[in-house]
Amino acid sequence: MKHQAPFSEDDLIATFFAPLAGEAGLRLRDDAALMQPPPGRELVLTKDLLVAGVHFFSDDPPGAIARKALRVNLSDLAAKAAEPVGFLLGLALPADWTAQWLAAFAAGLGEDAANYRCPLLGGDTVKTPGPLTISVTAIGAVEAHKMVPRDGVRAGDRIYVTGTIGDAALGLKLRQGATADQDWIGALSDADAGFLRDRYLLPQPRLALRGALKGFAHAAMDVSDGLAGDLGKMLRLAGMTAAIELARIPLSGAARRALQTAPRLIEAICSGGDDYEILCAVPPAKAASFEAAAAAAGIGVSLLGAAAPGEGPPTFIDAGGVAIQMARTSFQHF
Amino acid sequence: MKHQAPFSEDDLIATFFAPLAGEAGLRLRDDAALMQPPPGRELVLTKDLLVAGVHFFSDDPPGAIARKALRVNLSDLAAKAAEPVGFLLGLALPADWTAQWLAAFAAGLGEDAANYRCPLLGGDTVKTPGPLTISVTAIGAVEAHKMVPRDGVRAGDRIYVTGTIGDAALGLKLRQGATADQDWIGALSDADAGFLRDRYLLPQPRLALRGALKGFAHAAMDVSDGLAGDLGKMLRLAGMTAAIELARIPLSGAARRALQTAPRLIEAICSGGDDYEILCAVPPAKAASFEAAAAAAGIGVSLLGAAAPGEGPPTFIDAGGVAIQMARTSFQHF
Repeated sequence: MKHQAPFSEDDLIATFFAPLAGEAGLRLRDDAALMQPPPGRELVLTKDLLVAGVHFFSDDPPGAIARKALRVNLSDLAAKAAEPVGFLLGLALPADWTAQWLAAFAAGLGEDAANYRCPLLGGDTVKTPGPLTISVTAIGAVEAHKMVPRDGVRAGDRIYVTGTIGDAALGLKLRQGATADQDWIGALSDADAGFLRDRYLLPQPRLALRGALKGFAHAAMDVSDGLAGDLGKMLRLAGMTAAIELARIPLSGAARRALQTAPRLIEAICSGGDDYEILCAVPPAKAASFEAAAAAAGIGVSLLGAAAPGEGPPTFIDAGGVAIQMARTSFQHF
Repeated sequence: MKHQAPFSEDDLIATFFAPLAGEAGLRLRDDAALMQPPPGRELVLTKDLLVAGVHFFSDDPPGAIARKALRVNLSDLAAKAAEPVGFLLGLALPADWTAQWLAAFAAGLGEDAANYRCPLLGGDTVKTPGPLTISVTAIGAVEAHKMVPRDGVRAGDRIYVTGTIGDAALGLKLRQGATADQDWIGALSDADAGFLRDRYLLPQPRLALRGALKGFAHAAMDVSDGLAGDLGKMLRLAGMTAAIELARIPLSGAARRALQTAPRLIEAICSGGDDYEILCAVPPAKAASFEAAAAAAGIGVSLLGAAAPGEGPPTFIDAGGVAIQMARTSFQHF
């Protein structure tokens, strides 16, 4: 159903978004949200923009688009060991939006806002002659001095990553369906293909890792632009580098099977982006405690290697002990 | 200079935006900002999206585009009586961006961030196949229970507005230069034309009114979508209406002269949007104190009328005592 009568911005907000508003959102009837910061906490603020055709497909399910927009921000909060407090939503809608599309978008967003206890606080809705563009600003809270920074890696720190790497990059290739990828795509089971597509569509923010990060990590960031590039960023800020054995990179069964068919996929797996896993650096003396805390929280973590003082990007070492060469190490925004 | 070598997102942030970062922005080296809320204050959060071709012209000076994006948010904070704390910037850049354009954008933004003591805390920069899109989330602080709501108008409250109304709407018409507008455009002096263009280009957030609002106003909002529509919104939330004499609407000399040439402009003046003045409701017993406080702060305020219980939008009464009919009362987002 394409809407016929003009929807005013107020109608649109009252119909689709006011039901998602938290107390601080003032029923979205004001221009602003009012928030009482949790006592004794510091606030962590993060903002990600998502553009149709760049960060998602415009024909992805609207609820999944909404959830991804929120979740990529929650992933940033998770990496800082911050608890979600709420979010603001900026929505630039192209002219062909429909009430049905927006209702599904709001329903997906509302489910995640409830599940992650991260209510909508406010925002802005405008029209655009361009693609659908979504801007989420998420607010988190963390005990004073407990935010885990990106730049805190020290020499000898163990580098860990959560979950599995590369699934979303392969899921994106599946969506794109290039001729060059038909060899491994054709060999995938339906279950594997579904799993990889879903990993691209719907990130899983690792909020349950917060306690382990706060307790034991020197540094953390989420892997959004590719493991190789993001690890390089985190290490470079501290004047560190690392040599990572490829065999240590945690792979899902689906990714492992795709890689068996097409070994060249190792580069996409290491550099493809959209993982939304957490990379962190833990001092050796606390590694066992970190692993135990992560296990207790139900988050799988894998040891990739150790940080060492040095220049240059981390190297990735194959089974023969040779560093692989990558054409690019991360998703290039520009 | 069009950039030739690819700029990574990190280079771009380090070059153009890190110099604007406040302490909480962590030199923009993290994915998130860390903020210690001012003790005893509540936080006011607001977010506005601006799209090239909708909210500004893509060939406006880049510094002015940046300043407008920040100032429309500061205007929302001003209306809530909140002091700016900082902002996050989301920037979706089309493929043809140049380093020169971005340097000018960042310079304008930095000037305003410094002048308004509202440092950059963080954000996100992405590419878009569509028009330049800017998302600003501004954070303000206000003493507990002192935020001025939009929905607090009471019967008998005096309705005030700051500054002058309609200048930006006429400035936009000047920029558009439609044939139908040539009568009054041709009759304008260069000085008047320059003034009106500037009022469209560069809003003046009325932050100096904060004390007067906190002290004396029941309700406030900024006028961004047109006086008639925005006043209607504020009154409707409280079950109020009002009859406003057109003669009470504050006009600049330039707007007055344009209106003399083309009396039909009264509708654009009342409904055109982009004023970024503040509408507020003040109880009669405090009207004199409010006026004195505004004058002491150097902000001109004009009494428009009084709120009365009732349904329906406010009416605007001409010199003959007749309510004028408007085809539309505000900028229509959809």
